[in-house]
Amino acid sequence: MTTTPSRRPDGPRAFRPRKARAGHGSGHAAGQRPPTRRADTGDGPLLLYGVHAVEAALRNPDRKIERLLMTENAENRLKEALGERQLAAERVAPRDLDRRLGTDTVHQGVLAEVEPLEEPLLADLAANGCEAGPLVILDHVTDPHNVGAILRSCAVFGSTGLVMTRRHSPPLDGTLAKSASGALEHVPIALVQNLARALAELKELGVVTLGLDDSAEHLIEDETFETPTALVLGAEGKGLRELTRESCDRLVRIATRGPIASLNVSNAAAIALHLSAWRRR
Amino acid sequence: MTTTPSRRPDGPRAFRPRKARAGHGSGHAAGQRPPTRRADTGDGPLLLYGVHAVEAALRNPDRKIERLLMTENAENRLKEALGERQLAAERVAPRDLDRRLGTDTVHQGVLAEVEPLEEPLLADLAANGCEAGPLVILDHVTDPHNVGAILRSCAVFGSTGLVMTRRHSPPLDGTLAKSASGALEHVPIALVQNLARALAELKELGVVTLGLDDSAEHLIEDETFETPTALVLGAEGKGLRELTRESCDRLVRIATRGPIASLNVSNAAAIALHLSAWRRR
Repeated sequence: MTTTPSRRPDGPRAFRPRKARAGHGSGHAAGQRPPTRRADTGDGPLLLYGVHAVEAALRNPDRKIERLLMTENAENRLKEALGERQLAAERVAPRDLDRRLGTDTVHQGVLAEVEPLEEPLLADLAANGCEAGPLVILDHVTDPHNVGAILRSCAVFGSTGLVMTRRHSPPLDGTLAKSASGALEHVPIALVQNLARALAELKELGVVTLGLDDSAEHLIEDETFETPTALVLGAEGKGLRELTRESCDRLVRIATRGPIASLNVSNAAAIALHLSAWRRR
Repeated sequence: MTTTPSRRPDGPRAFRPRKARAGHGSGHAAGQRPPTRRADTGDGPLLLYGVHAVEAALRNPDRKIERLLMTENAENRLKEALGERQLAAERVAPRDLDRRLGTDTVHQGVLAEVEPLEEPLLADLAANGCEAGPLVILDHVTDPHNVGAILRSCAVFGSTGLVMTRRHSPPLDGTLAKSASGALEHVPIALVQNLARALAELKELGVVTLGLDDSAEHLIEDETFETPTALVLGAEGKGLRELTRESCDRLVRIATRGPIASLNVSNAAAIALHLSAWRRR
């Protein structure tokens, strides 16, 4: 499997986030702008780096880019996407980005300071019967590599969107964006204060919530995915929290047959999304 | 999906590596000990850290442990596995391990200096008709997180073993072992000099080699996995090398339906292994 994201320019942009409306839905106080700024510091612009992450941002008309820093090489690689955007990049040397991001960061010569995308509401995501694919709900999955890889699988197999708690989730930039390899621009992400309440809201909206749990009796392979579905996954090592488990319609596990029973969370999400896409083919 | 590896003490240890025999097979010079020492430096012991990686090593009777450094907390967590092994751990403080491994390494208070496991030969792996599950063959996948996660999926869904090139593969310890979360002790790994030659040898041994490639016509979902199979996966961003593609029996892709067509390599491997386990159920 090659792993370069190949955007399909002719395909529908099924995943463009819808504008958030203030005043209702899980977790937004009325009229308050969702605070999706850097989760680590609470302020400053979001930072996107890496060729695929920045290329996808350049091609997303909903993504406001405040500043773009590029080496000559990166500018050559991103010439086409830059042309669409009519945005002037500031020329930098690789060491300028090393200094800003740390020498361990694989920035590939490009850094964008961007505005957060506007957040969809849970009700908006569920409104169309999750026809783009299952919702993916993460219960305190904090590793940005895992969340990024899950976003990528959402974009590959089709997902109506990702739902995470506003706290205990990684910031929507940097490592997560790089691991998502462009998918951050395609998959709407709703951040909620309280996951149990969000699950209850989804149930009212007709969405079946499946909690993935190693110890479940039912197999996910027996699901038909004929009704709007949300896949609920827990954190590495901890699994679903008790209240989350209780809030799901049912718990399911992936059928295993080896000496170890538990998967990396992004691999579990990929398998579940693939299975649901294959069932709905 | 919870993600703590749960070893099944009663199950068969289907994946215990077989002893390497010198003198034949891909890539071993006659009588030469396979040089599986630290790939980065070429010498020194292999280092395992993290609770799951070291616990699995303690429980693997084929794994020689030269030295074991533990904090009091870690020793309490690993008491049971330590008891099986009758090995005395040297007591250390967390900062001692920080100093040795770097402060960014999540060692969880435990470090083991170990000998490499003996390597199986390709012919040994294929000898039983790959009944434990498909072989997984990696073509220059260098990221230790990805290879570790792939090992974990091999142990979850059943795999006869992993095959990698001796060069351009990550060392079999450290980050890889931690990402594998114990699976390094369960999945036999054969290292070969030349992947095209290894694929030709497998073909002669009756193994069907499926190369995963985004641009393939055939879908992996149409495979029955009734014959012994090897899944061949390429590196992040590069995919399979030309000679590797040409050496496969056929190229297949995972059916996708979203705006991005390519997966993280460990997610692609997880989906393929899950599919094959499900077909063979």
